[in-house]
Amino acid sequence: MKALVYQGPGQKAWTEKPKPALQQPTDVIVKVTKTTICGTDLHILKGDVPAVTPGRILGHEGVGVVEAVGPAVQNFKPGDAVLISCVTSCGKCANCKRQLYAHCSDGGWILGHLIDGTQAEYVRIPHGDNSLYPIPEGADEEALVMLSDIMPTGLEIGVQYGHVQPGDTIAIVGAGPVGMSVLLTSQFYSPGRIIMIDMDASRLELAKQFGATDTVQVGAEDPVGKVMQMTQGLGVDVAIEAVGVPATFDICQKIVAAGGNIANVGVHGKPVELHIEELWIKNITISMGLVNTNTTPMLLKTLRSGKVDPARMITHRFKLDDILAAYEVFGNAARENAMKVILSA
Amino acid sequence: MKALVYQGPGQKAWTEKPKPALQQPTDVIVKVTKTTICGTDLHILKGDVPAVTPGRILGHEGVGVVEAVGPAVQNFKPGDAVLISCVTSCGKCANCKRQLYAHCSDGGWILGHLIDGTQAEYVRIPHGDNSLYPIPEGADEEALVMLSDIMPTGLEIGVQYGHVQPGDTIAIVGAGPVGMSVLLTSQFYSPGRIIMIDMDASRLELAKQFGATDTVQVGAEDPVGKVMQMTQGLGVDVAIEAVGVPATFDICQKIVAAGGNIANVGVHGKPVELHIEELWIKNITISMGLVNTNTTPMLLKTLRSGKVDPARMITHRFKLDDILAAYEVFGNAARENAMKVILSA
Amino acid sequence: MKALVYQGPGQKAWTEKPKPALQQPTDVIVKVTKTTICGTDLHILKGDVPAVTPGRILGHEGVGVVEAVGPAVQNFKPGDAVLISCVTSCGKCANCKRQLYAHCSDGGWILGHLIDGTQAEYVRIPHGDNSLYPIPEGADEEALVMLSDIMPTGLEIGVQYGHVQPGDTIAIVGAGPVGMSVLLTSQFYSPGRIIMIDMDASRLELAKQFGATDTVQVGAEDPVGKVMQMTQGLGVDVAIEAVGVPATFDICQKIVAAGGNIANVGVHGKPVELHIEELWIKNITISMGLVNTNTTPMLLKTLRSGKVDPARMITHRFKLDDILAAYEVFGNAARENAMKVILSA
Amino acid sequence: MKALVYQGPGQKAWTEKPKPALQQPTDVIVKVTKTTICGTDLHILKGDVPAVTPGRILGHEGVGVVEAVGPAVQNFKPGDAVLISCVTSCGKCANCKRQLYAHCSDGGWILGHLIDGTQAEYVRIPHGDNSLYPIPEGADEEALVMLSDIMPTGLEIGVQYGHVQPGDTIAIVGAGPVGMSVLLTSQFYSPGRIIMIDMDASRLELAKQFGATDTVQVGAEDPVGKVMQMTQGLGVDVAIEAVGVPATFDICQKIVAAGGNIANVGVHGKPVELHIEELWIKNITISMGLVNTNTTPMLLKTLRSGKVDPARMITHRFKLDDILAAYEVFGNAARENAMKVILSA
Repeated sequence: MKALVYQGPGQKAWTEKPKPALQQPTDVIVKVTKTTICGTDLHILKGDVPAVTPGRILGHEGVGVVEAVGPAVQNFKPGDAVLISCVTSCGKCANCKRQLYAHCSDGGWILGHLIDGTQAEYVRIPHGDNSLYPIPEGADEEALVMLSDIMPTGLEIGVQYGHVQPGDTIAIVGAGPVGMSVLLTSQFYSPGRIIMIDMDASRLELAKQFGATDTVQVGAEDPVGKVMQMTQGLGVDVAIEAVGVPATFDICQKIVAAGGNIANVGVHGKPVELHIEELWIKNITISMGLVNTNTTPMLLKTLRSGKVDPARMITHRFKLDDILAAYEVFGNAARENAMKVILSA
Repeated sequence: MKALVYQGPGQKAWTEKPKPALQQPTDVIVKVTKTTICGTDLHILKGDVPAVTPGRILGHEGVGVVEAVGPAVQNFKPGDAVLISCVTSCGKCANCKRQLYAHCSDGGWILGHLIDGTQAEYVRIPHGDNSLYPIPEGADEEALVMLSDIMPTGLEIGVQYGHVQPGDTIAIVGAGPVGMSVLLTSQFYSPGRIIMIDMDASRLELAKQFGATDTVQVGAEDPVGKVMQMTQGLGVDVAIEAVGVPATFDICQKIVAAGGNIANVGVHGKPVELHIEELWIKNITISMGLVNTNTTPMLLKTLRSGKVDPARMITHRFKLDDILAAYEVFGNAARENAMKVILSA
Repeated sequence: MKALVYQGPGQKAWTEKPKPALQQPTDVIVKVTKTTICGTDLHILKGDVPAVTPGRILGHEGVGVVEAVGPAVQNFKPGDAVLISCVTSCGKCANCKRQLYAHCSDGGWILGHLIDGTQAEYVRIPHGDNSLYPIPEGADEEALVMLSDIMPTGLEIGVQYGHVQPGDTIAIVGAGPVGMSVLLTSQFYSPGRIIMIDMDASRLELAKQFGATDTVQVGAEDPVGKVMQMTQGLGVDVAIEAVGVPATFDICQKIVAAGGNIANVGVHGKPVELHIEELWIKNITISMGLVNTNTTPMLLKTLRSGKVDPARMITHRFKLDDILAAYEVFGNAARENAMKVILSA
Repeated sequence: MKALVYQGPGQKAWTEKPKPALQQPTDVIVKVTKTTICGTDLHILKGDVPAVTPGRILGHEGVGVVEAVGPAVQNFKPGDAVLISCVTSCGKCANCKRQLYAHCSDGGWILGHLIDGTQAEYVRIPHGDNSLYPIPEGADEEALVMLSDIMPTGLEIGVQYGHVQPGDTIAIVGAGPVGMSVLLTSQFYSPGRIIMIDMDASRLELAKQFGATDTVQVGAEDPVGKVMQMTQGLGVDVAIEAVGVPATFDICQKIVAAGGNIANVGVHGKPVELHIEELWIKNITISMGLVNTNTTPMLLKTLRSGKVDPARMITHRFKLDDILAAYEVFGNAARENAMKVILSA
């Protein structure tokens, strides 16, 4: 089969690889029908994630059709349409039993990382019963691809960890795909005011279409000063970091109100300076983490009932065979006005 | 001044009463600009609430302008526009300190019950600092009257006690004012499906306009059978009782899913038969209570940001002088297609 | 092998049955080393649980040693010492994924109910990885038998559903095994006052040794009057029903304080009259349910650290071969001063 | 009257000051019977808290007897014995209404900071109804002084913000007064293992007497390595920082387990380096804040029922007149083996 293979820092190829086979009785082989590219894939390609070794097939998102199931699989059979979760969970270790699937002792984020991933014609999904979801009939497959990773990440790590409440004033720092997923899913809880902060004017414009009530353009405006002015000097109830660099974390710690929350969603490569000498007295909470995907059932229900339309994040579509072109577009997202791309088999 | 006075079961009058005066240093006198009639007022008039004695001015909802403040009042001064909370709270007893304002040792629901109420030209509000809210500039006063009682009751006792979550399937039994307030405020948490159950076809039609996804007309349809069919035999995540009679409570206990919640909002006059022989194994919770009004700040913020429009519940408007006509309409709500009435000074 | 077999209402036998065999790849066969008898077994024997058909081996509690494992079992191997959970959970259905194991679509309470149970030399445990727990080294096996059902039931359905908080005043109605397990596990949260209510003076005496601060003997004293007097007319923060009859539920609804909780643990055979005409205004919550056993890891940790000693509930010990004598004692608990019995292979 | 007066960095005096008078209708004047010294007072004396200006009477803890009350005070009258809360709360601002008393718009921590404090013969307590608590009859006054600040700080900011659960493994970094209060109050929730970390062997010895199950002596042992070894490389469920310097915060971020919490209790004067490049994936929460004293009622109940004995922290006793000697001892706590001192009028 064809697959997108990491070949060391800066190098990748759409090349022939052996079709995956069942290895464990709980494995499921899925024929990928749609997948996408994540910002994390770009990090891997730069060489920032040393656990990924040359020869690895990338990708941890997608939908597909079950090709084969191991003898212990109960929830699925060949022919079933499925959503692939970016996090693999055994469902029976101590962490899985407390819904901390991100830290499953025989799973977690392994797809396209420690085992071969979804940017391929076929993929092997360990612990299929716990790591796949049946696709609701008549569902929008492109929208569903957003439920593999980006939407639950925004909802769990941004919105739920941040405890967004009806009427709250929240700020989202970063209007890339994960910031947009925070923006979309935060509206499940009816915040009164959603301030989107980014450098890119066109992304801010899109954010307004997606429900942001206010925008702040970094570069043109001082984000901290602007937010404090908007909030009469109180700051925001929830500040959500959706970039992953010290400067954006710093904005969050300067705009959070007393009694508020900082929810870090961004993936960081360096430490940040935490101004605990100012924050210790402010009764705030700082949260962070990898998505557990335990909100996937909730997202499936809200999608079905039209409470959210994640397909709005999709800006570009390609054939799976044209994945190198898709990487070119997604890797130059600002220039290309790209948010999420869809690759279809 | 003129006031609506209870004169014993079945009897009321719009008559002259002395203007209220400050009694405690924490009192505030409010000139009522807008008020409304609550279903509870009808119960009182029938003689169902013996704690209300003849001579009592009714009413526990309204907005107005501060006329005078006691020397210990800090938050308000004459001329301030205010929202009157139906629950009076001292802010300093054990129950107030845990936000259980409904059971304030020097307050709770006393307006139009144990002390004179708001269906009058002026009203004395004890513990004004804790029992009044400043009205946001430019706010819709009619909408705000809905925040005295009906909206926080729906939100706190129906939605929050019922733990409505995004994607949930919920049922609201009773499409009167309080059921409608549950319907409006439940949408703060994005349930996937809202099933409205009532006997009155026109109220069900209104419920659809207010966001109900499904309706069941009791009389024409078997509510339990219909809901179980709609939910593939699972039942609903949250069943909200908004009438206050055994038959409607019974529907709730028969349609709640395993792991679900029954939130009772209705005011009951008789015991109900609880089928604990069937429910004990279902891991359900049954909640009930008088509104604490601790969500008033949340409601003010959602109102300001346009997340909810409680004024949609208002069907009739009268001058305060015409309150007897208003009672006539509200007391025959089905015939008059009345939901909430507004009385303006 | 030998097993305790239900033979229709009022009839049981310790008789020969075929040794269980692996049926599913996720099955585990356990050689039972210690088991016990539950009040539920007595109900079954009376014929009160029609789902149990003649020929069924009873019992849903115990510890043992793994004899054989299906090919999909990953957590256990032959020779491992294990704790058997009374609730079987697949770990991968919708309810399991929200820790509602009691309502697992391929499990729940099935042992000694819908499939053969633990009062036998061997037992087949479906979904072994999720339904068994490794026994900590050097642990007290008798104490561990209490963790199959009675202790998690008390902790989850009584203490956690009842939201017991440090300093709270709580009442436990019923000093049988499940009431005692509530008593022991409530102390994890340091209630200030624990009032134990029962008819049996010797059980109340034992309750005092187990940590009750006060006792009320029904029959000799009026339980409602006494509790209200003890609490200056306020009632208790949490009232826990641990019997399962209307009279004890009634005590709970009369002694719960405003803002408090009624946690029903008892298994009921008849409806109860819920005085919602008095309770609706009291802001209370009523909870009920079958144990999920999701606190088993917590209980194992508290047992290991000496925070609780469930072995104190064991009053009688028998050889498994003498199970009929054990039933005789446990079935006449009051006369025999029996709380929990241990049967050892 | 006599009072301990700050006279600029490094300077203090026990000197004559005017007796405080009622200023607001909600004020209460309290005759101080017992008070203590807090680590914060030492910081102020060093000049680290510039908001404290020369001439200020220090102290924010104590018990006493009501001398006079303003006309709006309802809960107290002259002669009442009272506990003084270190946090002043009006009970009626937006933050007070959500129990965030630390950020009361007309209070918060002001005693011995922005207004004169309790290290004096008399003290004026603003918003007395909300900032004083009646002392239970027959209570241990010395123990109660610990409830002004140190005990609620440990309970709220360490234990509750850290979400300590039964069976948890927790680490407390710092065995000074606030670390000890975390140690004592954490036991309300029955953690399985409490690891105390400090440099001072005698404080660690005392910690063992107070309930620590393990100790690590910084200097003699590598705290991070030792804790990871004790926890099989998993780390602790809750890491509580109770010192306030970068090195101790750093220990916490290195020993917290995936899914765990860091609860910062220490008062920091400098930023810390947050290793978010390692922590972002670990699903942890970091909390911090000033005590709200909303657990004071809970602490009073646990004290009354003997669930905690805060008087164990008292190592030295002085007459109030000898406060300078008390400062000498408390300021050299390690040398003097001092934990908390009591000053009696």
